[in-house]
Amino acid sequence: MPARYPRGVTSPVRPPGGFPVVGIIGGGQLARMCAGPAAELAVALSVLAEAPDAAAAQVIPSAPVGSHSDTDAVLAFARECDVVTFDHEHVPPDVLDALVAAEVTVHPSPEALVFAQDKLAMRRRLTEIGIACPAWAQATSADDVERFAEQVGWPVVAKTPRGGYDGKGVRVVSSADELSDWLAAVGQPGALADGVLLEEKVDFVRELAVLIARSPSDQAAAWPVVETVQTDGICTEVLAPAPGLDPHLASVVTEAGLRIAENLAVTGVFAVEIFEVRDPDSGAPGYVVNELAMRPHNSGHWSMDGAVTGQFEQHLRAVLDLPLGSPHPREPHTVMANVLGGDHPSLYPAYRHVMARDPALKVHLYGKGVRPGRKIGHVNVSGSDLEALRERARHAADYLTGVITE
Amino acid sequence: MPARYPRGVTSPVRPPGGFPVVGIIGGGQLARMCAGPAAELAVALSVLAEAPDAAAAQVIPSAPVGSHSDTDAVLAFARECDVVTFDHEHVPPDVLDALVAAEVTVHPSPEALVFAQDKLAMRRRLTEIGIACPAWAQATSADDVERFAEQVGWPVVAKTPRGGYDGKGVRVVSSADELSDWLAAVGQPGALADGVLLEEKVDFVRELAVLIARSPSDQAAAWPVVETVQTDGICTEVLAPAPGLDPHLASVVTEAGLRIAENLAVTGVFAVEIFEVRDPDSGAPGYVVNELAMRPHNSGHWSMDGAVTGQFEQHLRAVLDLPLGSPHPREPHTVMANVLGGDHPSLYPAYRHVMARDPALKVHLYGKGVRPGRKIGHVNVSGSDLEALRERARHAADYLTGVITE
Repeated sequence: MPARYPRGVTSPVRPPGGFPVVGIIGGGQLARMCAGPAAELAVALSVLAEAPDAAAAQVIPSAPVGSHSDTDAVLAFARECDVVTFDHEHVPPDVLDALVAAEVTVHPSPEALVFAQDKLAMRRRLTEIGIACPAWAQATSADDVERFAEQVGWPVVAKTPRGGYDGKGVRVVSSADELSDWLAAVGQPGALADGVLLEEKVDFVRELAVLIARSPSDQAAAWPVVETVQTDGICTEVLAPAPGLDPHLASVVTEAGLRIAENLAVTGVFAVEIFEVRDPDSGAPGYVVNELAMRPHNSGHWSMDGAVTGQFEQHLRAVLDLPLGSPHPREPHTVMANVLGGDHPSLYPAYRHVMARDPALKVHLYGKGVRPGRKIGHVNVSGSDLEALRERARHAADYLTGVITE
Repeated sequence: MPARYPRGVTSPVRPPGGFPVVGIIGGGQLARMCAGPAAELAVALSVLAEAPDAAAAQVIPSAPVGSHSDTDAVLAFARECDVVTFDHEHVPPDVLDALVAAEVTVHPSPEALVFAQDKLAMRRRLTEIGIACPAWAQATSADDVERFAEQVGWPVVAKTPRGGYDGKGVRVVSSADELSDWLAAVGQPGALADGVLLEEKVDFVRELAVLIARSPSDQAAAWPVVETVQTDGICTEVLAPAPGLDPHLASVVTEAGLRIAENLAVTGVFAVEIFEVRDPDSGAPGYVVNELAMRPHNSGHWSMDGAVTGQFEQHLRAVLDLPLGSPHPREPHTVMANVLGGDHPSLYPAYRHVMARDPALKVHLYGKGVRPGRKIGHVNVSGSDLEALRERARHAADYLTGVITE
C-alpha cells in the first residue's frame, strides 16, 4: 500500500520560489476553471467550498468546506492566503468588513462589490459617472410605482436591489398591485430594505457584454465586445466578437467598461451586461447598461480558447497585481454555447459522440451532477465562418444536453 | 474555523455522470500539465507521487505518495483508477507485469514501453519495420566494438540500452578502451545486461521530432513535425512547425511516426526524436530515428498554446480511448523555450518582468525548486514572424533563468 495522502493537508501547499496563494470564496465552476491557469502560472489556489464535492473542490487540493457567510470560517480560510477573491457575489457585507478589518487583501474590494450586490447603489453610481442606464427609480410605495410608469409607460421592470440572479428577483409588471408583496417588505431587513428598483422596459436590439480586467495598479485590459444570446433569462450562447457591431459603439461600450472599472475601483475580471439600442429619432446605435458582474463571467468563457489570455488566467493575474496578459482574440470568431442539464444523468456517451463529430471542439465540463436547466458546462469553437461555428457549438451543446440525439 | 479538509481524502473523487479516473504513475511536470485539461474534460486524475510536494501533487487532489518500483504501492494505486498511464518510462518490467496480471488497463502497454526502455530492442524492432536508423550493433566485447568501428569509422556512439536519459548513458568514443568499464558490466543485471548499443555518429543537419497520439481503437493524430534545438544534450528550444522543412521529408517522417505507433502498438502520446540528414551523394533530405519517448514530451509543449489540441489533453483522450482532438496548429509559428534553473532561487520577480515585457507570452512553470540546469518551466509564443518569436521566447526563458537581467 502506498502511504495514502500522508501530507495530511491542512493548508495550501505553498509553491517554491516566492509564489503566492490565491484564496477563492466559493467552489463553483468559476473557481474550478481557475485551476488550469493557476497550475501553469505556479500560483497555488485554495477554495472555501460549499461541499467536499463542489465543482472546484474536485480539482483543487486545498478545498476546506465552509460557508461564505460564516465570518469565522472565512477569516480562518483567508489567513492562509495572500489574496482573497470570489467565485460569486454573495458574501455578506459584514463578512467582507471582517476581512478588511483583519487586513486581508481582497479583490474586488467590498467598496466595489457593493455595486454588484446592490442594484440601487449600482444605478445611482453609474448615473453619477455618466454611464447610460435605462430610466430608473427607487420605489417604496405604490404611488412611486404609478409615478414612474407615468414617465416611462407600462409595463415596468421591477427588481429586488439585492439577491437577484439569472432572472430571479425580477418582475415585469403592468400595475403597482403586482408589486404589493414586495412593497410590503420594503424597510424590513433583506433584499428590499431600501425599496424596489424600477426600470423602464428597454426596447433593445440585442444583448452585448464587455469583459474588463483591472489590476490594483490600475492596469486594465478589455476583451472585444461580445453578443450574448439569452433563452428564458439564461445565457445560452456568446458570439465573440459581437458580429456586425458598429465600431463606434464598440469603442463607446469598451470605454464605458473601463470608466466603470476605474470609478468603481473594480479589481479582477468583471463583466458589464449591456442592451444595444437604437436612437428612436436618428436610428443611431447606442447602449444602456443592464447589469454588472464583479467576477469572471459566462460571457467570457469563449476567451479560454478564443483569446491569447483567457479570463481565468487574467483574473488571477489581476488580483495578484501581476502584469495583465493580452486579451487579443486568436481567431476571427469564437462561439461559446452553454451546456444545460437535460434528462440524461450520464453525460459520458454524449461527450464521446460530440468529440468524434468535431475534433476541433473544446469541451469544458464542471463536474456537476445533471439537473434539468442547470449549467453543467460549455463548449467553444473558433474559426472564420460564424454561421458554421454557431451550428457546431449549438449541436454539441444540444447533444450533451440531450435535446437532440440524432 | 471551517472544517479543514473533512473529506479525509483517501481515494480520487469520482466525478458524476459516468466520467473516469486516470491514474498517472509519477508526479513530475508531465503529470502536472495534465491537471488543467483533465479539469476541463471532467476526467478525474490520481497521481502516484514521489513526494508530497512533487510538481503534480501540488495541483492534483488525489496524490498518494509511493514509489513506481514498489509493486504493492503501484497495485493499490491502480485499483482506484480506470486506466493507468505514466509520467516517465522508469516503471520496472516486473511492476508492469503485475499490473497486467491484475487486469489493470495500462496505456502504453508494457509490450510497447519496452521499446522506450530498451534501446537495443528499439533498434531491432525499428529496423525490422523499415524505419531509418543510424548504423548500429550490439557489442559484448572489445572485438565487437573494433569490428563496428571498421564499418562506420571512429568516433562511435555507445549507449547503455537501459537507464539513459538527457545525455546520461551515452559516450562518444574513439577506441574500445574507453568502453572497458561498460564491457566489463555486460551480462550482469542492469543497464548493460544485454551488451552495449553502438551507433554510427550521425552527421546531421538538425534535430526534428514528430509527436503522435494513438488510441487503443487505432485512431491516430500527428502534430506538425518540429525542430528541436539542443544545448549540451538538453532540449532548449522547439520551433513548430520545423522551419523550411522539405514537404516530402515532413510526410515521410510523419508516416514513419504513424508506422511506429501502429507496429509497436503504442497508445497515448509519444515522440519520435529524429536527425535530419542529407544523402552524401545526392544531397537529398532524409532522416534517421534517434530516440523514442512513450509519453507526452518536451518537444510537444508548444502544442499547449500553439495547437487546437495540446498534448496533455490529447494524451488523456488517447489513454481513455476517447475520440482524438485536432492537432492543427493555431498560428503559422509557435516557439517554445525551456526555462532552466539558474542561480536565483526566487523566480517571482523575474516572472513579473517577463509578463510585463510581453503580454502575449504564455508562461508555464512546474512548481519545482530552482537548481542550476534543472527544467523548471517553459514559455510559448505564437505568431507569424519566426525570428521575432524566437527572440521573445529566448529572452523570457533567459530572464527567468537569470542569464540576462537587463
